[in-house]
Amino acid sequence: MATRLHLSGRQHAIPVMELEARLKALEDKLVDLETRIPENRVSLVIFSGELDRILEAFVIATGAAALGQKVSMFFTFWGLAGVRQKKMVSGKRMREKLMTILSPKDTTRLPMSRMNFFGAGARMMRRMMRDKHVASLEDLIRVARRMGTRIVACETSRDVMGIRDEELVGDLEFGGTASFLSDALRSRMTLFI
Amino acid sequence: MATRLHLSGRQHAIPVMELEARLKALEDKLVDLETRIPENRVSLVIFSGELDRILEAFVIATGAAALGQKVSMFFTFWGLAGVRQKKMVSGKRMREKLMTILSPKDTTRLPMSRMNFFGAGARMMRRMMRDKHVASLEDLIRVARRMGTRIVACETSRDVMGIRDEELVGDLEFGGTASFLSDALRSRMTLFI
Amino acid sequence: MATRLHLSGRQHAIPVMELEARLKALEDKLVDLETRIPENRVSLVIFSGELDRILEAFVIATGAAALGQKVSMFFTFWGLAGVRQKKMVSGKRMREKLMTILSPKDTTRLPMSRMNFFGAGARMMRRMMRDKHVASLEDLIRVARRMGTRIVACETSRDVMGIRDEELVGDLEFGGTASFLSDALRSRMTLFI
Repeated sequence: MATRLHLSGRQHAIPVMELEARLKALEDKLVDLETRIPENRVSLVIFSGELDRILEAFVIATGAAALGQKVSMFFTFWGLAGVRQKKMVSGKRMREKLMTILSPKDTTRLPMSRMNFFGAGARMMRRMMRDKHVASLEDLIRVARRMGTRIVACETSRDVMGIRDEELVGDLEFGGTASFLSDALRSRMTLFI
Repeated sequence: MATRLHLSGRQHAIPVMELEARLKALEDKLVDLETRIPENRVSLVIFSGELDRILEAFVIATGAAALGQKVSMFFTFWGLAGVRQKKMVSGKRMREKLMTILSPKDTTRLPMSRMNFFGAGARMMRRMMRDKHVASLEDLIRVARRMGTRIVACETSRDVMGIRDEELVGDLEFGGTASFLSDALRSRMTLFI
Repeated sequence: MATRLHLSGRQHAIPVMELEARLKALEDKLVDLETRIPENRVSLVIFSGELDRILEAFVIATGAAALGQKVSMFFTFWGLAGVRQKKMVSGKRMREKLMTILSPKDTTRLPMSRMNFFGAGARMMRRMMRDKHVASLEDLIRVARRMGTRIVACETSRDVMGIRDEELVGDLEFGGTASFLSDALRSRMTLFI
């Protein structure tokens, strides 16, 4: 090739055209690669319905948002307890009523995953956090929302458990697994909590 | 450089050669980068042996497969309960027998992680899912397999717990952590369930 | 463009300059893309304080290190039990004392997440592992450290639970969520255990 490059004028044009074609191929390739590189995104599945785990989820969510990541949280199964604001029993089927009675009314009633002792452990943990001036779960939820966290409640879990939309907090998006995956597959970090 | 480019003929050849070298370097770089970009893959570790968590794992697995991802599921520790088809006690050591007796026979006997009430909770959850026409765990497992999900059982867990291959479902691949990691490290999403 | 390329000499210079500009743009783009591609890194949050889960965390950590990944482990909440070496009660507040009494002294006292039966399950699991010549948790921790695993203890969890630095193993780094996220966001794989 070197010899061809040393020719001038018309003959010269051929390698330049070749270069242009290779450059074009690289440009196209790069556009393709770019869509396959993770975005500045973090996606969390919140499956658990306990104070300690939901707390950790929001600590990570707000921490990631502070580092400039777009954060999506998908509340599914027991995790729906993290976006609940009240309990309604009337008009539900037997099994749905039972499930409602056994579930915490809102985040202030969430149990601990360990050392709960019928709620005493959860109250103790909240007091220990206050003693050390650590943000409460409810504070963190407010911060996460203000920072633009996408909060999605799993509609299948809601339907199966017979939870009504009024039982969940406002400003909530409903979606299925596909909705979560569309964010998760473009994320730098995905966690199942 | 601009002044050199305005010269014609022979002198002109030098920047073209330079360009060619830079282009070649870029092409090589791109080949390297491409191998480091996550593939269209999702890898799940299933560590838990409960109905609700294994269900969620298969919901995510089939959802990801539907979005064109190659899915690998690594069943380890209690998660082996998700690929079990029967219990065999004879010929095992004392401790292995005990472990077998305390383990669910197959996926239809999996307990819930919460509100199990000696199996009543798991039966109730299955009925609530049927009421809302949601696919059962066994349906999802069939779908996942049909969609080509790679299902690997952890051989160390199997050996430590003294589980025999006949106790596990057929068409199962056995592997260690390295086997799981080889898929996980190329994935867009990894979850520990 | 083809027609312009077929001209010789001076006129020829223009497409070469164009090519050079496009090449420069590609080079810059590639430098940027490279920083956004995951590194050979694995980051694990260890939230759980049980033998089986902490064991699995170290199996994955050492496995990933063996495959050339830089591994970071962030021990938070109950997970701090995985980096504990003793219990100290005196000089603590009431609630902190209670928490200490209810926590395992070191990794040899960790309970199982299931089938613990007041410690009998954990002892049985350790014996089953020894029978099959599988590395103990303490062996794995030593290996992980020797392989250069970055081990970070969550300082907020430590402070909230009133744990003193002397209660935790030596050679430990303390950090917050941001410290964990700085590694996690550059990782090929992130798991919440």
